[in-house]
Amino acid sequence: MDERAALALLANELDAAGDDAAIIDGLVITTDMLHDRTDFPDGTTRYTAGWRAVGASLSDVAAMGAEATAAVAVYAAPEFDPEELLAFVRGARDVCERVDAEYVGGDLDGHQEFTVTTTAIGRTDDPVLRSGARLGDCLCVTGTLGRSAAALEYFERSRDDAALERANELFRFEPRVAAGRVLASHATAMMDSSDGLARSLHQLADASDCGFAVDADQVPIADALREVAPDAALERATTFGEDFELVVTLPESALEAVRSSIDVELSVVGRVTDPEHGITFGGEPLADRGYTHGD
Amino acid sequence: MDERAALALLANELDAAGDDAAIIDGLVITTDMLHDRTDFPDGTTRYTAGWRAVGASLSDVAAMGAEATAAVAVYAAPEFDPEELLAFVRGARDVCERVDAEYVGGDLDGHQEFTVTTTAIGRTDDPVLRSGARLGDCLCVTGTLGRSAAALEYFERSRDDAALERANELFRFEPRVAAGRVLASHATAMMDSSDGLARSLHQLADASDCGFAVDADQVPIADALREVAPDAALERATTFGEDFELVVTLPESALEAVRSSIDVELSVVGRVTDPEHGITFGGEPLADRGYTHGD
Repeated sequence: MDERAALALLANELDAAGDDAAIIDGLVITTDMLHDRTDFPDGTTRYTAGWRAVGASLSDVAAMGAEATAAVAVYAAPEFDPEELLAFVRGARDVCERVDAEYVGGDLDGHQEFTVTTTAIGRTDDPVLRSGARLGDCLCVTGTLGRSAAALEYFERSRDDAALERANELFRFEPRVAAGRVLASHATAMMDSSDGLARSLHQLADASDCGFAVDADQVPIADALREVAPDAALERATTFGEDFELVVTLPESALEAVRSSIDVELSVVGRVTDPEHGITFGGEPLADRGYTHGD
Repeated sequence: MDERAALALLANELDAAGDDAAIIDGLVITTDMLHDRTDFPDGTTRYTAGWRAVGASLSDVAAMGAEATAAVAVYAAPEFDPEELLAFVRGARDVCERVDAEYVGGDLDGHQEFTVTTTAIGRTDDPVLRSGARLGDCLCVTGTLGRSAAALEYFERSRDDAALERANELFRFEPRVAAGRVLASHATAMMDSSDGLARSLHQLADASDCGFAVDADQVPIADALREVAPDAALERATTFGEDFELVVTLPESALEAVRSSIDVELSVVGRVTDPEHGITFGGEPLADRGYTHGD
């Protein structure tokens, strides 16, 4: 049984689960595990690892339209090098500071492979779910897609310090908590793009019982990805994932108010259609293809 | 650098960390990682694993005197067997039900070794820390010590179904959330016994700048441990750990009120002394010896 089938099995067992984060009495909770083999390529600093791991959980809080309260992490490694450990904690703390959350520590564990589990807590009385998209809504994306795909190219291609520094920088992202708070007042459905835009759209379509018509030319592609993969930039921006931008539907009438209140670009990439339309990308059906965590 | 040294290093970096759980704005957060090699002996069912892993985090919430709100878990395994996964979730949910918390799911991750990370959330406006023990206070322990030590003997000695069932039963414990709530009104210092009574006493003594005189005869030993290790029962009950009982100091005048309001035995095992006394056990100095997680 693969991870997606297992998640579907569990969705039947657990009332509160199933969206980017669970919600109970206004408290938003989300937890993720990342590890060396798949999530932290060679050259990832422990500072970047701390930032990225905690940021991934904060992104799930953002995707619910919630404010972020706090985060914890378990740092599991074969040995505890003081410099690495402090760098990790500083990365975790810095990403929390960016979103006005507090990093409150966690646990250490002896483990063969470097493994990090992060949990973030948030708060909202009015969460944005994946299930509310309405026919005719705009489909929007914050920021740009493809930063992580570009970072991986940098990690793989080069071992000089400048390239590694650039890769690490691309790998550290801004969790869109502030934008999510603004969007929460207007959004009809929202999630983050951690599994890639294509898979996110399939998940939103399933939850909202709708289709999407995406204008491929409007997908905001990270400059860094255009540089390292000029011929495959659109494809990777759409399917690679690991980007932690918000994918959101909202009425066109709300666009101006949202754009004037957030500190990141909001691109209209398409429209919500009826479910019979399916999901089209530049007029062609868009496959449910992307990053499955843990594979 | 070992785990304890690393934790001490981090205590300097992080304001909110250092007790059984972190606290921020009345929210109690704690996270732990457990894994196959050290935490789930051969024969541990997935139901017991779910119960125990989530219970360990709920015990940390109890140790702060907080009510338990919710728990999440990451279930990481080489493959996702539906029956095992559902058994895990049912164990996690059942232990949450025992303490009026909600199990809200979590994440799945492909991982070589069966690994579980649990996070529990609680709430209290008046947490009990490790640092408030006062000279003359009674030193008390809830329930009995040594259930997990006995369980391990059962797991190791036998492979017949009855013995395994008994081992699993001993391995599932009651997180002392309800008792912790009652104790919170009276306790001067509290923590759980997950590292063993001996180590817990050293940690309380460090935090409270006090000593302890323990009456060895009063240590409540689990019947199951007396049965499987009659000659070493006291020593194992004191140092083995993994028991998740509360170790607490409170004024003698509060004993009666507490005992009449909790559903578990509360044994007085000693007294808080001045720090010069150190920690004595039956009159002899008690070594700082016990279970270090992750070793």
